[in-house]
Amino acid sequence: MTPVPDATPLRRPRADQARLVADILRHQIHAGGYHDGLPAESDLAAEFLVSRNAVREALAVLKSEGLIDREPKVGTHVAIRKYDHGLDALVGLKETFKDYGQIRNEVRAAMTVSAPPSVAARLQLPPGEPVVFIERLRYLGDLPLSLDMTYLASDIGEAVIEHPLEHHDVFALIELVTGTRLGHAAVAVEAVATDPHSAAILQVPDNAALLLMERLTHLDDGRPVDLEYIRMRGDRITLRSNLIRG
Amino acid sequence: MTPVPDATPLRRPRADQARLVADILRHQIHAGGYHDGLPAESDLAAEFLVSRNAVREALAVLKSEGLIDREPKVGTHVAIRKYDHGLDALVGLKETFKDYGQIRNEVRAAMTVSAPPSVAARLQLPPGEPVVFIERLRYLGDLPLSLDMTYLASDIGEAVIEHPLEHHDVFALIELVTGTRLGHAAVAVEAVATDPHSAAILQVPDNAALLLMERLTHLDDGRPVDLEYIRMRGDRITLRSNLIRG
Repeated sequence: MTPVPDATPLRRPRADQARLVADILRHQIHAGGYHDGLPAESDLAAEFLVSRNAVREALAVLKSEGLIDREPKVGTHVAIRKYDHGLDALVGLKETFKDYGQIRNEVRAAMTVSAPPSVAARLQLPPGEPVVFIERLRYLGDLPLSLDMTYLASDIGEAVIEHPLEHHDVFALIELVTGTRLGHAAVAVEAVATDPHSAAILQVPDNAALLLMERLTHLDDGRPVDLEYIRMRGDRITLRSNLIRG
Repeated sequence: MTPVPDATPLRRPRADQARLVADILRHQIHAGGYHDGLPAESDLAAEFLVSRNAVREALAVLKSEGLIDREPKVGTHVAIRKYDHGLDALVGLKETFKDYGQIRNEVRAAMTVSAPPSVAARLQLPPGEPVVFIERLRYLGDLPLSLDMTYLASDIGEAVIEHPLEHHDVFALIELVTGTRLGHAAVAVEAVATDPHSAAILQVPDNAALLLMERLTHLDDGRPVDLEYIRMRGDRITLRSNLIRG
């Protein structure tokens, strides 16, 4: 790429330049760019008006995130594609990714337990009341996307786990067994570093960044019935939303 | 706490029990609980119907996230409080946190640069067109909350940086200098591990988890004018939203 004539370069320390370049490349990759590989370092340096060392440092960051592979002679290629998960409406993973492929759930637990007081409180149940606990490792293709832990009010949960969980969203099963629609959900999203045990299950390095979503879903009549803790692989999922100025 | 009579314990491997306990405690802490410290390990084990070793492992996870301090004789205390950032409407950080305290911005850069092609494309400008680049480290109290990089269309950006950036949101300044309201923003949220340079700036350990938000904000007439890359400390911010079933 030819530098723009009279361009104003970004005069900043190298590490600050590298962060800028890494952010833009990361989002270009997620937007589906660079199918034939990334441009050479010198071309990227000209495009971003930064030093070649800054480009090299940015690529090292993306490599450490597992986003790109770099090999001598072969060049720099995208290693993994991320999937968009909408934060605009309440939809299950199978519904969300129906255009990308089939979601497969490995059911790690499906059992009735006594609700810890804090879980019971969220579901508006007396402490110690039975709830149905489900843990699923969710795959798209060969790689895990997320590890989901779900607490369901027992009248609904007992009916849900009578159905095959491998290929159905819990949302769809709740609507099936209750004969009513879901209403709304309160969602909290955090970034946390993976603990070693969850890292092994999700097949990511220790300390890899995860999106941790807590979601309390209510039936259409307002009753809270489904409390979930979802660990999403940070390298596989981007949450997207469209916000309106109030 | 007395165990619930006839309670059904969670019969699972210790690491799986620990993950459940850690998730619930994390959200109790963020909800403002445990002001006088966390209960003893034996009480937590009774509450969650898990082994004391599982509780100990859960507390180790929260300690490694920097959420709690544990000291012999003193006990276990909450080390840091997180703040809620709404994902329901388009608001700046100063507006968002007005009930928590004053946001202070350390301005690390405010300059005109030539837009890299990908930035220009997002802002619907020809490649190489001048844009105003602003980098701010944003504090609430003594600790950084986020590191924000902002690209503004130059007609707006040149006017924005005439104003003091230390105590004003860029959103408010855009509305001031244009005399129009902002319209909507397309938001993408990812979890990434911190690179060492950003970690030093944000005062977090290397590899700490960050929420990385890309936000493209449009004026009310639909023109995209403000492209931001925001690194939020994962240990200080929770994103919250309320989702409706479509």
